[in-house]
Amino acid sequence: MRFFSDNAAAVHPAVFQALHAADRLDTAYDGDAWSKRLDGALGDLFGTEVRALWVPSGTAANCLALAALCPPYGGVVCHRDAHIQNDEAGAPEFYTHGAKLLLGEGDGAKLTPDSIRAVVDAIANDVHRVQPHAVSITNATEYGRVYTPAEVAAIGELAKARGLGFHMDGARFANAVATLGCAPADLTWRAGVDVLSFGFVKNGGMNAECLVFFRPELAEATLIRRKRAGLLLSKGRYLAAQVLAMLEDDLWIENARAANAAATLLARAAGDRQIHAVEANELFLRMTPAEAATLRAQGFDFYDWAEGEVRLVTSWDQSEADVAPLAEAIAGLQGR
Amino acid sequence: MRFFSDNAAAVHPAVFQALHAADRLDTAYDGDAWSKRLDGALGDLFGTEVRALWVPSGTAANCLALAALCPPYGGVVCHRDAHIQNDEAGAPEFYTHGAKLLLGEGDGAKLTPDSIRAVVDAIANDVHRVQPHAVSITNATEYGRVYTPAEVAAIGELAKARGLGFHMDGARFANAVATLGCAPADLTWRAGVDVLSFGFVKNGGMNAECLVFFRPELAEATLIRRKRAGLLLSKGRYLAAQVLAMLEDDLWIENARAANAAATLLARAAGDRQIHAVEANELFLRMTPAEAATLRAQGFDFYDWAEGEVRLVTSWDQSEADVAPLAEAIAGLQGR
Amino acid sequence: MRFFSDNAAAVHPAVFQALHAADRLDTAYDGDAWSKRLDGALGDLFGTEVRALWVPSGTAANCLALAALCPPYGGVVCHRDAHIQNDEAGAPEFYTHGAKLLLGEGDGAKLTPDSIRAVVDAIANDVHRVQPHAVSITNATEYGRVYTPAEVAAIGELAKARGLGFHMDGARFANAVATLGCAPADLTWRAGVDVLSFGFVKNGGMNAECLVFFRPELAEATLIRRKRAGLLLSKGRYLAAQVLAMLEDDLWIENARAANAAATLLARAAGDRQIHAVEANELFLRMTPAEAATLRAQGFDFYDWAEGEVRLVTSWDQSEADVAPLAEAIAGLQGR
Amino acid sequence: MRFFSDNAAAVHPAVFQALHAADRLDTAYDGDAWSKRLDGALGDLFGTEVRALWVPSGTAANCLALAALCPPYGGVVCHRDAHIQNDEAGAPEFYTHGAKLLLGEGDGAKLTPDSIRAVVDAIANDVHRVQPHAVSITNATEYGRVYTPAEVAAIGELAKARGLGFHMDGARFANAVATLGCAPADLTWRAGVDVLSFGFVKNGGMNAECLVFFRPELAEATLIRRKRAGLLLSKGRYLAAQVLAMLEDDLWIENARAANAAATLLARAAGDRQIHAVEANELFLRMTPAEAATLRAQGFDFYDWAEGEVRLVTSWDQSEADVAPLAEAIAGLQGR
Repeated sequence: MRFFSDNAAAVHPAVFQALHAADRLDTAYDGDAWSKRLDGALGDLFGTEVRALWVPSGTAANCLALAALCPPYGGVVCHRDAHIQNDEAGAPEFYTHGAKLLLGEGDGAKLTPDSIRAVVDAIANDVHRVQPHAVSITNATEYGRVYTPAEVAAIGELAKARGLGFHMDGARFANAVATLGCAPADLTWRAGVDVLSFGFVKNGGMNAECLVFFRPELAEATLIRRKRAGLLLSKGRYLAAQVLAMLEDDLWIENARAANAAATLLARAAGDRQIHAVEANELFLRMTPAEAATLRAQGFDFYDWAEGEVRLVTSWDQSEADVAPLAEAIAGLQGR
Repeated sequence: MRFFSDNAAAVHPAVFQALHAADRLDTAYDGDAWSKRLDGALGDLFGTEVRALWVPSGTAANCLALAALCPPYGGVVCHRDAHIQNDEAGAPEFYTHGAKLLLGEGDGAKLTPDSIRAVVDAIANDVHRVQPHAVSITNATEYGRVYTPAEVAAIGELAKARGLGFHMDGARFANAVATLGCAPADLTWRAGVDVLSFGFVKNGGMNAECLVFFRPELAEATLIRRKRAGLLLSKGRYLAAQVLAMLEDDLWIENARAANAAATLLARAAGDRQIHAVEANELFLRMTPAEAATLRAQGFDFYDWAEGEVRLVTSWDQSEADVAPLAEAIAGLQGR
Repeated sequence: MRFFSDNAAAVHPAVFQALHAADRLDTAYDGDAWSKRLDGALGDLFGTEVRALWVPSGTAANCLALAALCPPYGGVVCHRDAHIQNDEAGAPEFYTHGAKLLLGEGDGAKLTPDSIRAVVDAIANDVHRVQPHAVSITNATEYGRVYTPAEVAAIGELAKARGLGFHMDGARFANAVATLGCAPADLTWRAGVDVLSFGFVKNGGMNAECLVFFRPELAEATLIRRKRAGLLLSKGRYLAAQVLAMLEDDLWIENARAANAAATLLARAAGDRQIHAVEANELFLRMTPAEAATLRAQGFDFYDWAEGEVRLVTSWDQSEADVAPLAEAIAGLQGR
Repeated sequence: MRFFSDNAAAVHPAVFQALHAADRLDTAYDGDAWSKRLDGALGDLFGTEVRALWVPSGTAANCLALAALCPPYGGVVCHRDAHIQNDEAGAPEFYTHGAKLLLGEGDGAKLTPDSIRAVVDAIANDVHRVQPHAVSITNATEYGRVYTPAEVAAIGELAKARGLGFHMDGARFANAVATLGCAPADLTWRAGVDVLSFGFVKNGGMNAECLVFFRPELAEATLIRRKRAGLLLSKGRYLAAQVLAMLEDDLWIENARAANAAATLLARAAGDRQIHAVEANELFLRMTPAEAATLRAQGFDFYDWAEGEVRLVTSWDQSEADVAPLAEAIAGLQGR
């Protein structure tokens, strides 16, 4: 069984059904009936007026958001371990035309008001230094931790006070909400978030993510930038339909709950092997190469993360029953 | 019946089947079994070694190709009516970091060696002028005309002599090949083409195009640029599978033949209304507003192109029988 | 005697004196006493509040202005023969991050409201087309013609009505004012101009031009862009001092008058050889290669412009007496 | 007396003389007699074939160098405290179209092979991470330390082994050479440096720095980029003349020796206040606010650097006699 990443899991049957349902000629690009329903559907979920744009990847979502919040000559505060810093091949710099990521600290890839202030306050306000224009956080984080609504709101207040835009990379937003049990609104716009990259691909989708603007005016230029980046697919309805399918009948949160539950079960087995508290669907565990080899010999696949550390990620399609054998195997390791 | 554009037609059943067949966990990005088969499958089709990369849109394909052929400070010769000039919202400038499109003339949106020379020879070879680095042609063109292998080869020779890269926008490459009945190789690398944007979305695909490098070394940096543009979808197998499905059993050429046949039937009915000879699946017809209204009243939808001109595009899923009523209606107009 | 270009002439003695007067330690960049006087000095000249920034080249001035008026995804309407289109090696695209120049027509490199409308009205207002955000004109033009205050105002009105920023490339602004005898204000902000590239290098300066913002708020980001482009020289006082010297005692207009007078004298001798009416300090003349050779044999140097055409440019340091021999020689040609 | 920075000092009389000597019409841009002598003059100094381009600022020199060595999607390893990282407002990102600075550690702003390896080895060689393409070091460093020829060569070897270009920011290269007493060649190309930003402005020049390519082929595209960035001043001879004047009669090294000598004298007085060993013309000293106030009350101006730290910079025009009163004043502080 594979625990490499949720980003390569299968597509949920409901998503496939939606693709089939969209399989008839309609207006191209985002003029079709499905695409036009996005603003409303996301607005309902978040309980406020939003502009919602499908995009084919999370990197695209993140970087369009950053470009909407930060000029080419500005900077974006993010965590040193943020996906936008380490795993997007310089896409933020491409989309923003060279804005600079300003790196902050924090346990579990979580920024705090203090760690943001440490970055921002060190920048003299003159023309020689790249000035901060936005903050970007990831929830759930790159280490599977979550920001609570209160933590997000504290950053949101700081952002507002400093005139910074506020972006949330929500590649695993559903997993965070599933863990927190909060309203999506409380974790986003009510906490000061301006733009959310709402991930669906890791959560049962095929190739549609959704960029949600809580400040609708930011969407205007983004519509142009999306086209200019070659992201305005001509048969956009097949992307919109995926997003809509994920929102219907709470599929997005159900899928996230399933993945989280599987991770929680594994975490329990892993005990104090946990390097970061397991709060979503990712596990970072201390494990010797020999132990890792033992698990792999039993048919479990996962990434080595660092020396003596491994990462396991559970997916929407892995039930607790599915992962129980791995939990047992891990617990067995502990017995040694 | 709608004749707006082939870019919003339905997806071919075989493509859907391929999506289902790919619906199981595999390696993310382009490390999966489907993506890895692309080089071979396209290499077989073209009879030479190629590097083939899926991308989710034709604009992305074109602009990655241009970025591979032209530095930020260079220029790309294209037709004044080229899609890259008029319909991509400045995406070429975005991907190339500001390269300049150098506009040439020619009937039916076709460049010729002479019209290219007219552009290139007018540029003094000094540091104040943007120097040409590449030529880009569209086949079939934006006006539904085709370049023959000999015409492409003549441009290819000029490109080689002048040290220019050579890109072909093949959003409707299949339609051109279907018309010409030539080997794909004769229309591309044997004629000097370095990179082809091979379109599938207009021809029965959902959201996968293929960038084909006949000079494989150009693909290396493009792999990075694709990621950097947010185009490296994590579940890439669903794109690769589409391309492979289109290639299997000659689906790509069969679909194009169907669309072309429908267009030819309409062209015959349109007679000397044709503004551009109908050589693929697009018709540009002289038509008064009253005549257009007559057709629309009969349930036929299409775009007004210019004053007294309309455009009709046929799709892979429109049989001759399907379009016969429109042909009759057009012929009826002629009777007036 | 050389008539290649005013852009390589000597430096006026008063400018050199000003450089010497500035030759003592002061604050770096633009914090010095000279730089701080620019806003006031230019504000006085134009009779309104301005922000004035020195820059070391006209290309830099133009492109910073365009970047202030047009986003990366926008377009700038300019004349087909504009310097920014043909002679700046793609610098506008570099500074704007890929904005597109939208080319208009007009005699003598002069745009008109009609020719601008022809460009702008042809652009469908959708996300696929690059939308116009600004107009840029050159006064005096690349062919030595001038726009009158009324002509500029007509373009200014159109720009305002269409929501377009308005830039004037004034590499030879002084020559235009000298010809027109108007107030600088009438040719700029009163006519709707937002930003002026005020040229001094061609007019007796060494390496300082001045960017004048009539909408001061546009200057803020430009201060950053200037630094980010490596244009914020550390000893800025040596640039500011040049600009101030040019403004003192009307040196800028006196120098321009001298150059214009020399050109007028030559124009009189050239008679109907003139391809463009001589309204500043440039002459474009019909001349056979043999005639050109005759002049060159007499020691007069100048550029061939096109087949059967030559260009001559006079400079601030060429008196009518200096150019009289050339006038005579040209008149002599006419006698043949 | 002011010790803020050498970047605002006066211009050496020999430089002014050279400007006057260049004050006659010649070919524009870099076609003049002075500009054409640069390759030869710098080639003589470095004892190898070079291409040498004047530019008006150090930021411009650095960033053109980085653009020559690193593609838009690449990374440049530099010290965390490098000028290109902290003091150029994102100019490296602008010129390279978004390349990423990869930050390394080291005392006194000096990178070491180990600290470079620590950066480079942590980057997985896949398409998701920005790959390193170049190393940039500053000599003398931002903290007034110098790299010896052996230290540079060790980095040069590593760069070569890893396929990285190698740039040296030599804003105070002269000060480094003056301290080391080595041949300029030993500190640059013989140690593997590909491009040097050779600074003259801090050392007696007005507004000309020189970009020296030890791999001449890198200069070709840079000539275009220089124009495209608005840096190809039309009266380039006034820049070339400055560089030539600085090279003549060893003025560049004499000036640097003077500045270094003044700094050394102050360093001796400062004793163990030195935070970084004084190896060029900058001093970073521990000093309480009260002590700093005492000095300022005696007419000495300088920057506070951090809490309890000040920075003093000496210039080419400050003799040991000139700075002796400050030395005495500092020593006096120590007595308290």
